[in-house]
Amino acid sequence: MPQGKPDVVPDDGLTTRQRRNRPLTIVHTGVGKGKSTAAFGLALRAWNQGWPVGVFQFVKSAKWRVGEERALRVLGDSGEGGTVAWHKMGEGWSWVQRSPESNEEAAREGWAQVRRDLAAQTYGLYVLDEFAYPLHWGWVDTDEVVEVLRSRPGTQHVVITGRNAPAALVDAADLVTDMSKVKHPMDVGQKGQKGIEW
Amino acid sequence: MPQGKPDVVPDDGLTTRQRRNRPLTIVHTGVGKGKSTAAFGLALRAWNQGWPVGVFQFVKSAKWRVGEERALRVLGDSGEGGTVAWHKMGEGWSWVQRSPESNEEAAREGWAQVRRDLAAQTYGLYVLDEFAYPLHWGWVDTDEVVEVLRSRPGTQHVVITGRNAPAALVDAADLVTDMSKVKHPMDVGQKGQKGIEW
Repeated sequence: MPQGKPDVVPDDGLTTRQRRNRPLTIVHTGVGKGKSTAAFGLALRAWNQGWPVGVFQFVKSAKWRVGEERALRVLGDSGEGGTVAWHKMGEGWSWVQRSPESNEEAAREGWAQVRRDLAAQTYGLYVLDEFAYPLHWGWVDTDEVVEVLRSRPGTQHVVITGRNAPAALVDAADLVTDMSKVKHPMDVGQKGQKGIEW
Repeated sequence: MPQGKPDVVPDDGLTTRQRRNRPLTIVHTGVGKGKSTAAFGLALRAWNQGWPVGVFQFVKSAKWRVGEERALRVLGDSGEGGTVAWHKMGEGWSWVQRSPESNEEAAREGWAQVRRDLAAQTYGLYVLDEFAYPLHWGWVDTDEVVEVLRSRPGTQHVVITGRNAPAALVDAADLVTDMSKVKHPMDVGQKGQKGIEW
């Protein structure tokens, strides 16, 4: 079990308090399950801290994340923890009036909004769900993302999920977990199941 | 992105519907972050399906899982999804009157209750958080656990987290993800942070 003790004492000129509140860039990548579910698990902790949580869902699927979305909306509306804002590319981002001409354009619009929110310090935690795909495909420029994340103000944490996270993003991130598939029911013919896949 | 399509068509004598509702044994292991957070993310899906969720927290730490516990309690009490029962070893399992003499005994008592609940089909999803440790340490017999899971009635899903999941458990499981550490802030002297580690 992790003991919460660092391996080395850093020589970074920061106080312990500053280090405690350092904004983290977190990446969940790899071909195994659990990348997004772990990100939404992190959202529970952020909600519990009273932080505003912003979810940007960079996927198009009616079925995906319905459970997480409903749960986080109930939590956000409970008045007990932080607020939750849920933004979906699949149905057209709510702040964009017209329909985007392509998934590529939609992904870019999503990133542009994330960038504006980071500048405005809108959220305490950003869940950029499946954002690794538009980066991997080159729809959104990874170098620009890295630069925006590096220079973001305040203590905003960002978690990015998806297979094939670009190397430059992994290099720039503070915490990277690779979810490796050891075994999956689909290997032996099992289809996706409610409560498990969605 | 997973397309939900199996690689092979199984020759198991089951109907598609039976296969759809097959109870899964899921293991999140490895040294990286996200094992438990992904399990609690799964709990959101189960809650959304209206399933009773049972969490058995096989760890002793005041700080761990406080966010997840509060969030799942709010969800369970909301009346919108499934119920949530949260059991903690660290404070003494609620169904045991006297204090256990050791962590080993406490872990065994936890497993005994899981076994009773599986027989009674109490929950739709069981989160056995950090249960891999008492198995790895030999406090609870892995072969017994595997046999109880194999013969459990109904469609109860079980997710087990923790490093060092025993090979026999991995063999018996349907879905296994290894969370590998690519990079962690503690490597460079960062201490645990609120909203991230708890």
